[in-house]
Parts: sequence; C-alpha cells; structure tokens
Amino acid sequence: MEKELLTNLALNGWNSHIIRIDALLGKLSDEQLNNEVSPGKNRGIYLLGHLASVHDMMLPLLGLGDSLNTAYHTPFVSKPDKEVKDLPSVAEVRAYWNKVNAELANQFAALKPDEWFARHTAVSEEDFKKEPHRNRLSVLLSRTTHMAYHFGQLALLQPKAQA
Amino acid sequence: MEKELLTNLALNGWNSHIIRIDALLGKLSDEQLNNEVSPGKNRGIYLLGHLASVHDMMLPLLGLGDSLNTAYHTPFVSKPDKEVKDLPSVAEVRAYWNKVNAELANQFAALKPDEWFARHTAVSEEDFKKEPHRNRLSVLLSRTTHMAYHFGQLALLQPKAQA
Repeated sequence: MEKELLTNLALNGWNSHIIRIDALLGKLSDEQLNNEVSPGKNRGIYLLGHLASVHDMMLPLLGLGDSLNTAYHTPFVSKPDKEVKDLPSVAEVRAYWNKVNAELANQFAALKPDEWFARHTAVSEEDFKKEPHRNRLSVLLSRTTHMAYHFGQLALLQPKAQA
Repeated sequence: MEKELLTNLALNGWNSHIIRIDALLGKLSDEQLNNEVSPGKNRGIYLLGHLASVHDMMLPLLGLGDSLNTAYHTPFVSKPDKEVKDLPSVAEVRAYWNKVNAELANQFAALKPDEWFARHTAVSEEDFKKEPHRNRLSVLLSRTTHMAYHFGQLALLQPKAQA
C-alpha cells in the first residue's frame, strides 16, 4: 500500500514536470531555444539536449534497456555548452526529447511498485543490502529535481514570464 | 520499513538542496544577489525571499506551527518581483532563509515516518480518505522540486559557472 502510494507520488512529480516542459517547448520557437538562458550561460537547446540525454541514461541505469542514442551523451553531458562545436539541430533535439520520454513512460507503466524498490544497476547486490535506499525510486526522485533545476532555467527563455 | 526508507529518501533530497543553496549563497555577494538572474527576470534577492516564504508557509501547511514571518509572504509570494517596491534588505532575507530552514529542520527531526504519511492541513479528513497521497511527504517532495526550480535560476548569478 505505502509502496504503491509513494511510487505514484514520485511518478506524478516526474510526469507533471514532463508535461510542464512540453508546454513550454510548445511555446518556444527554435530561435528562442537557441538563445542563452542568461548572458554567457547555457543555451536552451543545450539544456534540452542535456535533459534528454540524462533521461536516456536512465534506461540502462534503471535496468530497463539500452540508451536510445549514446552519441548525444558526449556533447550534452560530458561537455559544457561552450566547448561543443556541432550540436544536433533544434528539431533533432526536440525529437530526441520526445522519443526518450515516451520510451521511459512505456517502461515505467510496466513496472510494479515492488520493482521501484529494487536496486538500480549502479549499485551492487552486496552494497544494496547495506544501502537499501539506492533503489529505482531514488533515481526517479533525483532525476525529477534535476529536471526541475533546468526547467527553471529554460523558463527564462520566455519573453514575458517572470520566473 | 518502507515508510522510513521513503521518508529518508525524501528528506535527503530536501536537505541536499538546502545545502547546495547555502553553498551558493556563501559564494554570492549581496550585490550579486540584487542582480536579475537574466535580463528582465526576477532578482536573486526576490527568489531567495520567495523560497524562504514558501518554506515558511510549510509550517502551518504541515501542521507544525505558525509561520515565522507572514509579513514577508506578500512581497515574495503574492506579488511578482517587478511589482514590489520595498523589499527587505539582502541581509534580512538571508537571515529569514536561515531561520525558516532551521525551524523546519527542527520540526522534521521530530516527525516519525508514520507522521509523514498523515494528511497535510490543506486537505480535510474526508478527502484524505479518498486521496491518501495528499500527505506531508507529498508536500515535502513538491517543495523540493520547487526549490530545485529556483535554485537553477539562482545558480545563474555566479559569474563563471555554466549552469
């Protein structure tokens, strides 16, 4: 009972942020996404590719399959925006974001509450016995706050909105 | 067991963000906090007062006592930055942030896992029977993502850091 309730709480938090970012992306033009969120800082396109890549990396981390496109992880995760020369186009990054989140949604729908409390793949069975909080749910929670962090920055790309 | 594990997971997420924001505040001067996070957007001081106020409002929402300073809630929550004329000083807002989070930490330390699964005060006993996810823990999780959202914006006040 508590497991299901908590799993749903965490999934609601995840889904609501995906929905809010999708709504923002629907309002932002490709040109706006190419702008820096603040002078000298990361561009919107970089942050979106960064979020999509980190979400893509959740597939193997959660033991749900291979990443969809590891080639994107280098420019968007291993390197900062200013060091990357050739980023994929905004259209490609938008498509990647949608594809990765759709795949995660499919996989999440198939997971039972108990499975969210199983270990993620970055922790060994031995360590998991000592540290039972290192489960799939902890990954979902931390990736949700990671998404919120960059969503706050992406929201600055809107011409009028305050925050 | 699961309740304790989940409560600790959520509290770790909360605490880690407080720690990260405190570290950022230690690096930012009062002058930097008075800057807009991006041209035309909210100032750092406004966002910090906003976060402190929203955290202060968690005290009554979680049934843990009265807010410490309701007078700050009007400028920092009810109104957007650009409409507020007289904000408290940066020193006052920094002190408010510290005081509120210390009070929450005290209160959280006294709550047992079961109590995190009890309803928050914005939901009636009747509604809670139908919607058991509207508990204290759900408030903690949503306020953690709220904090991450604005932390992402505050981080832009650093002169060199990318994200």
